[in-house]
Amino acid sequence: MKETILSELLLQRLERPAEGAMDKNGAHMNRQLYEIIRQEILAGSLVAGSKLPASRMLSKELGVSRNTVLYAYEQLLAEGYVTASSGSGTFVSQSFPDHSALHNIRAKSGTIAVPAPQQNPTRFTLSRRGQHLVSHSGASDRQWGAFVSGVPDVSLFPHAVWARLLNKHWRAPRPELLTYAHNGGYLPLRRVLAEHLRLVRSVRCEPEQIILTTGIHQAIDLIARLLGDPGDKAWMEDPGYWGTRSLLHSAGIETIPVPVDSEGIAPDAATLQNPPRFIFATPSHQYPLGMMMSLSRRRMLLEYARQRGAWIVEDDYDSEFRFEGRPLASLQGLDEHDRVIYMGTFSKTLFPGLRMGFMVLPKPLAPHFATGLSELFREGQLVQQAVLADFIEQGHYATHIRRMRQRYAQRQGLLREAIAARFGADWPTSTHEAGLHMVIHLPPGADDLGISMAARTQGLSTRPLSRYFANPAQAAGQGLLLGYACVPDAEIAPAFLKLAEVIEPALEHLARTQAPRRAPAAAINREAWSGA
Amino acid sequence: MKETILSELLLQRLERPAEGAMDKNGAHMNRQLYEIIRQEILAGSLVAGSKLPASRMLSKELGVSRNTVLYAYEQLLAEGYVTASSGSGTFVSQSFPDHSALHNIRAKSGTIAVPAPQQNPTRFTLSRRGQHLVSHSGASDRQWGAFVSGVPDVSLFPHAVWARLLNKHWRAPRPELLTYAHNGGYLPLRRVLAEHLRLVRSVRCEPEQIILTTGIHQAIDLIARLLGDPGDKAWMEDPGYWGTRSLLHSAGIETIPVPVDSEGIAPDAATLQNPPRFIFATPSHQYPLGMMMSLSRRRMLLEYARQRGAWIVEDDYDSEFRFEGRPLASLQGLDEHDRVIYMGTFSKTLFPGLRMGFMVLPKPLAPHFATGLSELFREGQLVQQAVLADFIEQGHYATHIRRMRQRYAQRQGLLREAIAARFGADWPTSTHEAGLHMVIHLPPGADDLGISMAARTQGLSTRPLSRYFANPAQAAGQGLLLGYACVPDAEIAPAFLKLAEVIEPALEHLARTQAPRRAPAAAINREAWSGA
Repeated sequence: MKETILSELLLQRLERPAEGAMDKNGAHMNRQLYEIIRQEILAGSLVAGSKLPASRMLSKELGVSRNTVLYAYEQLLAEGYVTASSGSGTFVSQSFPDHSALHNIRAKSGTIAVPAPQQNPTRFTLSRRGQHLVSHSGASDRQWGAFVSGVPDVSLFPHAVWARLLNKHWRAPRPELLTYAHNGGYLPLRRVLAEHLRLVRSVRCEPEQIILTTGIHQAIDLIARLLGDPGDKAWMEDPGYWGTRSLLHSAGIETIPVPVDSEGIAPDAATLQNPPRFIFATPSHQYPLGMMMSLSRRRMLLEYARQRGAWIVEDDYDSEFRFEGRPLASLQGLDEHDRVIYMGTFSKTLFPGLRMGFMVLPKPLAPHFATGLSELFREGQLVQQAVLADFIEQGHYATHIRRMRQRYAQRQGLLREAIAARFGADWPTSTHEAGLHMVIHLPPGADDLGISMAARTQGLSTRPLSRYFANPAQAAGQGLLLGYACVPDAEIAPAFLKLAEVIEPALEHLARTQAPRRAPAAAINREAWSGA
Repeated sequence: MKETILSELLLQRLERPAEGAMDKNGAHMNRQLYEIIRQEILAGSLVAGSKLPASRMLSKELGVSRNTVLYAYEQLLAEGYVTASSGSGTFVSQSFPDHSALHNIRAKSGTIAVPAPQQNPTRFTLSRRGQHLVSHSGASDRQWGAFVSGVPDVSLFPHAVWARLLNKHWRAPRPELLTYAHNGGYLPLRRVLAEHLRLVRSVRCEPEQIILTTGIHQAIDLIARLLGDPGDKAWMEDPGYWGTRSLLHSAGIETIPVPVDSEGIAPDAATLQNPPRFIFATPSHQYPLGMMMSLSRRRMLLEYARQRGAWIVEDDYDSEFRFEGRPLASLQGLDEHDRVIYMGTFSKTLFPGLRMGFMVLPKPLAPHFATGLSELFREGQLVQQAVLADFIEQGHYATHIRRMRQRYAQRQGLLREAIAARFGADWPTSTHEAGLHMVIHLPPGADDLGISMAARTQGLSTRPLSRYFANPAQAAGQGLLLGYACVPDAEIAPAFLKLAEVIEPALEHLARTQAPRRAPAAAINREAWSGA
C-alpha cells in the first residue's frame, strides 16, 4: 500500500466527531487513527518495511491536528507495530507471521524438530471437574419472589440505619480500611461477634478464633483446601446442601452421602467403620428437611470425631430464626476437644448481597486459616465490616432478627394454612420450628423436578427435594422446597393456590399411572413418604 | 445431687444483674439458669433420671421469676437435656456417655466388630496442600505505608463522590440488588465496563463476555477449576506473582516456571515441546520486573495457544498506570481465535478493599463461568456494582485514573532520584514506564530476604525479589520490590534513606565475604545482575 493510498483509506474510514460530542480533546480521533493503522498492519495490507506518511503531511491530508497523528504513531511505536529511525521516517515493523515467530523462538534455543501442530483441539471444553460443577449446578437465576428459598425479606432491612452508618464511615475513611484486610478481618467486628455468638448460640470462642469470610461458601472452600487433600472423604447429610457438595467435589474431596433420620445425620455401622476427614452437618436445622440433631446424636458425633481425628463442620446457616424458645445451643459449644469448626452467615439475618459470613475455628487452626484466606482470596471490605460492627454493637442486629423472626413465623403459618386448606391438615410437610423455607412432601414417584419446572413457567420458584439427594434418581423423598421468607403476607395464599394448580394434575397423573400396580394415591400411607 | 442441693448451687452461681443493666427483661437470668443446669448435666453431676425441682418452688428459692425457670426448662427440653412427663415433673435425660452412644448407633445396624479407636490422631494437621499454601504464603500483614507494593494511594480516592453515589442507592434500595447476584453480575456495570475496555485497552468484548468477580484471585481460581483438572500444567512467568502460584497449586495445577527476558515470557524449545493447559502472563507490565511483552512474542504466544489449544490468561493488573503514551493495547485484542481470558481489577485503580474485579471470556465460555461463579461462591454486592457503574458512567473513574497516573509518575520519579542520589544514577532498577512499584536490583548473592526482614524492623515494607521466583534459592536475580504509590511525596526520600542504611551494610558484608573469590562489589559488572 502506497502512502497516498493509506491517506485515502484513512480519509474514508475516520469518523468525524459529532458536534458537542463527549470527547472534546480529540482523544477519540487519536484512538481511531491508531486503531485503523494497527488493523491494517495486522491484516497484512500494510506490509513490513512500508513507510508511513510523514506526520505533518498526513495531518494536513486528513484535516486532523498533527498531535493526533503523532499520538497514533507514538502508540504504534510503543507497541512495536512500527519502528522510527530519526530523519528517515516511520516504518511498519517486521510483522512476524505466526509460524515463523514460533520458529524464531525455537531457533534461539538451537535446532529441534518442530512439533507437529495439533489441529482442531477441543477448543472450549471445560475440565472434568468444571463439567461436573456446571452440570450439577444448584444455584438458581431467580433470587427474589415466591417461593425462592434461602432468601430473607431484604425489603424489610433497616436500610436507613445502614445508610447512616455507611455515611459515618465514608465521611473520612481511614486508609487502613480501604486497603487489603489481613489476619481474619476487622477486629472490633470479631469482638462483638464473639460476644453475640457466646450469648445467643452458646458458641465458645474468643475474637481470635473468628475469621470473617464472604459467606459460607468461602468458609467451606477454605476448610476443604487447608484441611483436606484430594481423595479425602467427607460425610454429607443426604439430603443436603448442593453448595457444599459442589465445593467439596471441586476441591477433590469425595463426598459420602449419609442418610438423616429424625435425630439428624445417621451413619450406619459400615459408614462408621470408615472414618472420614470431615463430617458436614446442619445440627440446628437440617437442610433442607428441618429437623434438629438430638443431644445423643450430637454427643456421638463429637466422641467419634475425637476418637478418629475427624473434623465436624457445623453449618449454622439460619438458626437465628427459631420460632419457639430461643435458638438452640450450637454443637460447637458442646465440643470439649476442638473438633468442631463452626460456620455462620449474615446472608439470612441481614441480606445475601452483603456477602459476609464467618467461621469459628479451634485456636490452633485460626492463624493458619487467616493466612490461607489472604493467600487464596486477598480479603478486604473493611469499611463494610466496620459498619456491621456498629450495627451489631448499637443493637440494630438483635432488633432486626427479633422483628424478622416474628414475621417469618407468621409467613410460615400462612403458608401452612394455605397448604392445609387445599391439601388437608395432615398433608406431610417438614418441621415447623424454624427457618426461611419449608418442604411440602409429595408421594413416592412424584416428578418433583417436572412440577418445579412447570411452576417456573407460572413465575413460581420452587426447588425439587429429590435434587438435594446425592443421587436424585434414587432419592428417599420427593417434594418441593418453598421459601416463604421473601413473600409478602398477602401474596402467600394466592401464590400457593397457583402452585396447587400445577401440583394437582401431576399427582392425578401419578395416581392414574400407578393405579394398576398400587393403591390409589389417596390411600397411600402418608407416613411412608413424610420425610425422615 | 438432690433437688435442694441443686437449688443451693444455683443460688451460689447465679449472678444478679446490676442496676440499670443492658438487659432489663430477664433474658440474662434465663440464659444463666439454663447454662448452669446444662453444664451440670454435661459434667455428670446431675445424672440421668434425677428430678429437677418444680418450677414454682425453684423460682421462689432463687428469687427469680417463674418465667425464668420455665424458660430454662423449656430450652433444656427442646435441646434434649431433660424430659418432662406431665404431672410427674422434669427429669434429666438419659445422658449417653460417648462410647455407649457410638455403640448405640452401631447396635441399630446389627452387631459388628467395634473398630479400635485411633488414639492421639494428629489433631491439628493441615492437609498437604494446606501446609504448602501456608508455608509458601506471600500475602503480607502490612498493607499500607512505605514501601508496600501493589497498594494504591487510597487516601486520594474521591470518597465524597463515592459516598454520594452510595447514598443514592441506599436511599431506597431495590430488593433485587440486596439478594444474591447471578449471571455474572450487574449488567449496567458490565455494559460501561465493556465500553471502557474497548476504548482504553482495545479489548474486544460484549457485556455478555464480562463476569464480575471479587478480584483477580477469584478469577484465577475459577479458571483453574472450570478449565483445569488436577495434574494439568500451567506456564507461569518466573519471576511471577506468588498469588497465581498459590492458587494454581491449591487447585492441583502444576506450575511450570518459564523465564522472562526483555520481551516477556520466553519459553525455550524444550518447554514448547510440552504444551500446557494454561499460559499465565502479564503482557502489559511484567510482574514484578516491569517489562512489556513485545509484539512478536505476543503473536507467537497467540499462535502457539491456537495450535495447541492452550488458554492464555492475561493478567492486566495495573496497566492503567502507564506513564508514557496511552495504556498499551491488550493481548486479548490481538487474539483472533478466542484463546485469551483477560482479567482486570479495581483494586489498583480504586481501592483494594472494594474487592471487585472482572474477567473477559471467549463467548462460548462466559455462561459456564457465570454458573461456576454462582455455584462456587454465591456472588452478591450488587449495590456496590451499581455504585461503580455510576462512578464510571459519570466520568469519575477516568478522571481519578488520570489524576493518579500523574501522581504515581511523580512518586516513581522521586524514588528514582533518591536511589540515584545514594547509589548512583546507573544503579540497576526495573523499567520505569508504569505501575505502582519498582524493583531495585542487588548484586548476585545479596541476601534480599534478610535485607527485607531487617528493613521491616525499621518500619519499612519491602519484598525480596528472590521470593518471586519458583525456586528462591536459585533465583535469577536479587533485589527489592518498592511500592511508591501509597507513600506521600515528602516521605519517599527519607524512607529510602532509612532503607539505604539497611542495604549498605548488607552489601558491604557481601563484598567482604565474596572478596577472596570475586572482584570487589564495586567492580561487579552490573549488566549481569540488572534483571532480565
